[in-house]
Amino acid sequence: MIKILVAGFKGKMGATATKMVLEHDDFELVGVLDPFEDNTNLKQMAEYPEIDVPIFKQKEDVLSVEPDVWIDFTIPKVAYENTRFAIDHKIAPVVGTTGLTEEQLVELTARSESVKIGGLIAPNFAVGAVLMMQFAQKAAEYFPDVEIIELHHDNKLDAPSGTAIKTAEMMSEVRTHKKKGHPEEQELIKGARGADFEGMKIHSVRLPGMIAHQQVQFGGVGEGLTIRHDSYDRSSFMTGVALGCKKVVQLEKLVYGLENLL
Amino acid sequence: MIKILVAGFKGKMGATATKMVLEHDDFELVGVLDPFEDNTNLKQMAEYPEIDVPIFKQKEDVLSVEPDVWIDFTIPKVAYENTRFAIDHKIAPVVGTTGLTEEQLVELTARSESVKIGGLIAPNFAVGAVLMMQFAQKAAEYFPDVEIIELHHDNKLDAPSGTAIKTAEMMSEVRTHKKKGHPEEQELIKGARGADFEGMKIHSVRLPGMIAHQQVQFGGVGEGLTIRHDSYDRSSFMTGVALGCKKVVQLEKLVYGLENLL
Amino acid sequence: MIKILVAGFKGKMGATATKMVLEHDDFELVGVLDPFEDNTNLKQMAEYPEIDVPIFKQKEDVLSVEPDVWIDFTIPKVAYENTRFAIDHKIAPVVGTTGLTEEQLVELTARSESVKIGGLIAPNFAVGAVLMMQFAQKAAEYFPDVEIIELHHDNKLDAPSGTAIKTAEMMSEVRTHKKKGHPEEQELIKGARGADFEGMKIHSVRLPGMIAHQQVQFGGVGEGLTIRHDSYDRSSFMTGVALGCKKVVQLEKLVYGLENLL
Amino acid sequence: MIKILVAGFKGKMGATATKMVLEHDDFELVGVLDPFEDNTNLKQMAEYPEIDVPIFKQKEDVLSVEPDVWIDFTIPKVAYENTRFAIDHKIAPVVGTTGLTEEQLVELTARSESVKIGGLIAPNFAVGAVLMMQFAQKAAEYFPDVEIIELHHDNKLDAPSGTAIKTAEMMSEVRTHKKKGHPEEQELIKGARGADFEGMKIHSVRLPGMIAHQQVQFGGVGEGLTIRHDSYDRSSFMTGVALGCKKVVQLEKLVYGLENLL
Repeated sequence: MIKILVAGFKGKMGATATKMVLEHDDFELVGVLDPFEDNTNLKQMAEYPEIDVPIFKQKEDVLSVEPDVWIDFTIPKVAYENTRFAIDHKIAPVVGTTGLTEEQLVELTARSESVKIGGLIAPNFAVGAVLMMQFAQKAAEYFPDVEIIELHHDNKLDAPSGTAIKTAEMMSEVRTHKKKGHPEEQELIKGARGADFEGMKIHSVRLPGMIAHQQVQFGGVGEGLTIRHDSYDRSSFMTGVALGCKKVVQLEKLVYGLENLL
Repeated sequence: MIKILVAGFKGKMGATATKMVLEHDDFELVGVLDPFEDNTNLKQMAEYPEIDVPIFKQKEDVLSVEPDVWIDFTIPKVAYENTRFAIDHKIAPVVGTTGLTEEQLVELTARSESVKIGGLIAPNFAVGAVLMMQFAQKAAEYFPDVEIIELHHDNKLDAPSGTAIKTAEMMSEVRTHKKKGHPEEQELIKGARGADFEGMKIHSVRLPGMIAHQQVQFGGVGEGLTIRHDSYDRSSFMTGVALGCKKVVQLEKLVYGLENLL
Repeated sequence: MIKILVAGFKGKMGATATKMVLEHDDFELVGVLDPFEDNTNLKQMAEYPEIDVPIFKQKEDVLSVEPDVWIDFTIPKVAYENTRFAIDHKIAPVVGTTGLTEEQLVELTARSESVKIGGLIAPNFAVGAVLMMQFAQKAAEYFPDVEIIELHHDNKLDAPSGTAIKTAEMMSEVRTHKKKGHPEEQELIKGARGADFEGMKIHSVRLPGMIAHQQVQFGGVGEGLTIRHDSYDRSSFMTGVALGCKKVVQLEKLVYGLENLL
Repeated sequence: MIKILVAGFKGKMGATATKMVLEHDDFELVGVLDPFEDNTNLKQMAEYPEIDVPIFKQKEDVLSVEPDVWIDFTIPKVAYENTRFAIDHKIAPVVGTTGLTEEQLVELTARSESVKIGGLIAPNFAVGAVLMMQFAQKAAEYFPDVEIIELHHDNKLDAPSGTAIKTAEMMSEVRTHKKKGHPEEQELIKGARGADFEGMKIHSVRLPGMIAHQQVQFGGVGEGLTIRHDSYDRSSFMTGVALGCKKVVQLEKLVYGLENLL
């Protein structure tokens, strides 16, 4: 049983994390933290009937419940201070707050190493998306013929998506450079063959109803290999937070990026 | 039991058609026609052991076996004469030979009407492809948000494919015009949003290993509808030829295009 | 501009319908109806700032705003009375309330015919799902080889889904009966070949994250045809409600089932 | 430039391998071997016009052209002798012949280690299929909710396919055991939920037109991850043979199974 504290438990992400911890068999919620909450126990709040867990206003007070892991979904300034405090008190941080500076990351990592406490700071907790990118990179070593099809709702302004570009970048690190398609291919209508990223092609589909989907499609002689990730809603990051909580207690330093735990 | 003659039985398409007729429970192969074949019976040929079916050199001779249907996979000039001959002798033609002129089609249709004989001339016998286009057209009435993804082997020179353009044309006949995507969407890399066809988007994927595939993807509030056709090899036209043979014997005039029988 | 009234505007479905009408270019919301609402105008309610539309308590009062169409998402008893009232006052009903009896439907239809007023009562307003079933039925005429893969979240208790069974029933009405697969095929593990429905096969996939998806997959010699519907959330029924509002004003009788308008 | 010899160059696989070597920029075909061929150079054969490459009858004679790699698609008995001969003469073997015994593999591996020569013996050279299984295994660590859908032509007798069972076995090695679906789920029609393999589900689709396809589908909270392999024809093993030729020259012992080179 891993004892967990959630900082920023009233935000959208923090609330989802709190619920995940409460429902997970391997986790025990030992406290939540929010400087602006006047209630002192979750059971006083409508959303948490019969959940007897203390609410703390000051981070120093959480030490009384001896958490193993500190989940943090606050704001950058607070997250930095919280993470430093957690490390100093041998509580392993799992931080989803984005916006920490390079400098802060370096300092926190050094601090964690010196006290041999594990931790995770990750801008993206969607395990499926991270695996998709890792698999795509691996397959690109063997199949230089690859195209990305990414599909999003039609409110999205930019094409290709950031994930598609990041995937293409990861593949181009290992892929034998090759211009895709027939050397003499012709576009009868401009844009048909998609966006060119170092010889690979990216196609951006925008349709109402869709959420966020990406398909990386490889072709070889007589065969095809496809890796697809579908993101249906924001709760998808919870698999990654849970994974982080389990892994950080076994680490001896802070790690940046979920991919380094997979 | 429909009695069938195959003209041009030694070509690639004709040979496949001959085999289809032989294997089909509802059809009887009563003869094949080729002016340059010296054997007089299929059983004399290595490919057709024990198949006792006469080979004719002259089209006039086929009348002795009284075919109901005349399958024709020859060359344009021959196909025209054959079809006229078939109609005049009340044999329903099923013609896959391409290249007949508009004028010839008009004449043959008039001729068929005057003698009340059915027939089919079709440039494309792939039932699945024709259904895909019909379904796409129907769905476009209700879902103006649509994009086409077509995927072919990387020897293909032109993009988008002819089928994709034809599908888009059919949809635009019935679709409420609408520019796809967010009005302010931006291509970070040129071509990402594909080819524009009257506000719809077409994306052409080219990969080794693939054959000929097309996916028409519709989006509405909270839902998606996808119609996909996969063509794995040329034998796919046989379903349409068999269907043609069954339908023409019930018709009273020549029809152009498989879609008019579906 | 079609003038629309929404009955049951405070329920989940009714509220979504109200919003749809407000946002649609071809519709004008002329009133909403709820016997238990004390406010008299939408602008008094927090959800509808600046929307100046009267709220009625009594159905008789709605006549003052002369609606063309009466959208009804109430409860069966109320829906029956509302629909009868609408027809009698030449307002075309679009009813999504389920639970009307066979007898009530017959009576309402007769009533509508006598006054030549159009209308729609539909248990399912998802246009995409209805099209999927129609297309599947059509394709089954030509491709007797078909299997259904339906995918739902893993809270679903029954397998196959109701939609899968209904699709199979529709296909079996027109399909040449045929036992799928090789006559001597063997299941090394029981259940591998799925559920048998008159020779067709249905496979039910259950996974967290999924919502409601169905894929009808046809195979022919050398080709495949796939029709897929994805339902991402309940709002998907709104495309059908909007369609209904546009169509009923052109009809001269009540129709049951969205499929009869497509 | 890697110098390559092909043994068994007249068989189906050997002929495909020969062509691949001839077309590959990094390979030079220095000879082919077949004890029953009377021609002494490929250019004497109709299939290889203007290809000036010696044909050997005796394996001892190939040493004159100093190959780096020995591709072997012969028969088990010959393959064993050939592989031993190749190793002893410091030619790295790439063997696709199946049927070598466990004992022979052990002996050949030991032999290769003693002379520090690399080599590969693989029953399956389809890189895409091997990657699919590796990725599936990796993802199963994080997503215990997984179902396999495998799709084959309808001449296939057994269900599930061997590849599906092997994939399931590999996943069960690392997967947290979990019974898929709702604990109280019910099959309205027997078999709907597919074959059960240690709590995972396998669905076998059989349709004419299809070749060999497998989709491994994972679900997590709010997301899905899918890995799919499509095998369109037998030539797909060539990517693996080419990869093997490049890798064995860098190895210092014989390896069994393509997965150990990926």
